[in-house]
Parts: sequence; structure tokens; C-alpha cells
Amino acid sequence: MEEVNFKNKKGAVVLDTSLFVNPDVRRSFGPNPTAALEKFLLLAAQATAFEFYMPPSIFNELSNFIEQEKIPGELFVYLHQKSPKKYELTTPAYLLYELVEDIRERINKGLRLAERAARNPEGRALDEIVQDLRRKYREALREGIIDSKEDVDLILLAMELDALLVSADQGIIKWADKLGIKWLVPEKFKQYMDGLIKKTKCLSFVEEEGEAAG
Amino acid sequence: MEEVNFKNKKGAVVLDTSLFVNPDVRRSFGPNPTAALEKFLLLAAQATAFEFYMPPSIFNELSNFIEQEKIPGELFVYLHQKSPKKYELTTPAYLLYELVEDIRERINKGLRLAERAARNPEGRALDEIVQDLRRKYREALREGIIDSKEDVDLILLAMELDALLVSADQGIIKWADKLGIKWLVPEKFKQYMDGLIKKTKCLSFVEEEGEAAG
Repeated sequence: MEEVNFKNKKGAVVLDTSLFVNPDVRRSFGPNPTAALEKFLLLAAQATAFEFYMPPSIFNELSNFIEQEKIPGELFVYLHQKSPKKYELTTPAYLLYELVEDIRERINKGLRLAERAARNPEGRALDEIVQDLRRKYREALREGIIDSKEDVDLILLAMELDALLVSADQGIIKWADKLGIKWLVPEKFKQYMDGLIKKTKCLSFVEEEGEAAG
Repeated sequence: MEEVNFKNKKGAVVLDTSLFVNPDVRRSFGPNPTAALEKFLLLAAQATAFEFYMPPSIFNELSNFIEQEKIPGELFVYLHQKSPKKYELTTPAYLLYELVEDIRERINKGLRLAERAARNPEGRALDEIVQDLRRKYREALREGIIDSKEDVDLILLAMELDALLVSADQGIIKWADKLGIKWLVPEKFKQYMDGLIKKTKCLSFVEEEGEAAG
């Protein structure tokens, strides 16, 4: 069982933008990104036994989707912006093999797709071929892989803080899993927050009892 | 100045296949891969203050180019086959950012090349277009990058042994450099070996003098 020591160290949670941006996953929080973020912050304010983090690079992405001025500024005290200590952290060397092999296969697949498009089957419109190429190429080379510094920020920050990582990105989850990072899909996060709030109340009660007894 | 302590620790050198396979770089060792490897082993036998390593994955690659039965088996005692401790070693986390950003740019470039080939300029033969695509795609996505487990083996083994890495591969040299690994281009390696042999003799002399005095 995961243990959270209320007095010494707060449980940490690292959040991806998908939680607020993806319509399917933010539904339980709110009808639009701004409402969803505000709802989350209100819940976070109650789950004081836990700390919530977002890498600044991810927060910048989120900023494009929300109207920050509509959310009371004081609520942002419940969402820490912090980058991982990228010049101090280390990762297991065997990950390099997995990353390099994964990319190698994808690159080869990309070339096969390109050749097929260049060999241009007759009877298909050029624009259709190019559209199709773009879609398949992106699918083959970008999906299920960590492919941006924002992705790396999320994984390393969760690693550094021994935090729970909440993301809908399959590439991020795959690599978090390889590194032994706790992860949760955003669909379950609203219920998880409700659980955290209950746990916070329970821990406060135990602490007060302890102080009364001591 | 790099210090080699003869009594405690031997200087280590990690070798890539290019030293024996690439005609331009093996010239100073021999007219063909087998002769070049034998010549190297004869020199290595004299440079006893140093240890020479090759990851087994790299040795397997080399095996395709040499006639092992033509080289006296006892000479192979001077070329250790060893993999890096990939499950114990760690690499700086910031490397992940560099690798991911590098790959991202290459992937985007690959798509642009694919689109250009698919848009198939009139008057060019299809086979010519595909040939051209293959060459440019490989250049964009594979050159100057670590793109195989053999590459990772070389870099990690040199890191683990604090060894000099001898390779002609620009991708390997680039990453060795980022990690602070000593490296040398194979063109200089014959002269370097001559230097190692001189150094070995000098160190043996100093040691004998020391023993005589003590």
C-alpha cells in the first residue's frame, strides 16, 4: 500500500494538460478548460495533504486553452509550477537502448510510407495521397513515443518528486511505466481527487487526536 | 594531462569496427580488414599498459568482414569483448531532452522529404525519385545520431571504463562529446598506438628502476 506521511512529506501529483483540454477526459471537472481548471483548483484546495505540480512548459501549453483572468488568482497557490532538476537527475542507461530501437523501427516505417506515397497509385488525387501520407507518417513516428521536451518534463518531474503522473498521452504513460513512476489516466482523476480529499480529512483527524492524546 | 597509473589501473581503449572496415581509416593498419585487425592485435600485445575493448555486438559486426581463422587465436587475448553494465549505469537526464528534440526535428524533416517525393515532379522517372528519397531520408534521419544498440553499447562501455573511444561515426562522436568521453578519430589511431607502446616501455622502465631502488 502506498503510504503518505502527513507530517513529513506530502503526496505529490504531476498533471498533464490533457486533464483540462481533452473534452472526453475533462468532462467530470467542467464543460470547458477554464471551468475544469477552476473546479480542479477548488478541489485541490481541500486536499491539503497533497501537492499538485505542473511543469511550466506544460502550463504554457494549457494557457492557450484557458482564460486565466476568469479564475481567482489565489487558487493558483494550489498548483505549483516547477521544472525537473534536469541537470542533476539521471536515468537508467538501458532506457537509451529502448528509445533508440523504438525510433529506429519508426524511422524505417516512415521511409516505407514515403516510398509508397511517392509510387503514387494512379487514380488517386495528389492532395488525397499527401493527406494520407501525413496522417500515417505522424501515427507511425509520433504516437506512443515521448517526442517533445514537454513530455520529458512531465516524466522527469514525476520521477524527481516520486509523484503520481496524470496523463492521457500513451507515449508518456509507456515511459512512465518503464521508469516505475505511478500513473493514472485522467478519466479516473475526479474520483481520485474525491478520495484524496477524504484521505486529507482522515489524516487531519488522526493528527488532531494524536495531539490531544500527546 | 591524462594520467595513467601503471600499477593500479590500465588505460582503457574502446574500439568501433570502422577502424578495421573503412578502407580510408584502416590503411595504416593493413590492406584488408583481416590484416588490419591482426596488425592491431600485434601492436596491442606490446602496449601492455593499456587494455583494449570491443562490445560483443560490435565484434559481431566486425566478424562479417574478417576471416577469423587467419588470425592466431592467442592474439585475441589483447582485445576484450565486454558489454556495458546497462542495468547499472545511468546517464544525465538532460540528454533525453537533446535526443528527443534532435529526433523531433529529423522526423519533421523526413515528412517534408516524403511530401516532396509524393508530389512527384513531372519529367522525372519514378525509380529516380524513390532512390533520391531514400538517400535524402536516410541522410536526414540517420546521420549524426545514435541510431542502433551497437552505437549505445560503444558509448556506454567507454563511459563505464572511462576509456578512450575510437570511432569514425559522427553520431557516436557527437554523443561521446556531450558525455565528456575521450574520443579519437581512427585516422590518428595508428600513431596513437605507437605512442602507447612507447609509453608502456617507459612506464615499465620507471617501474623496474623503482623496484631496484626500493
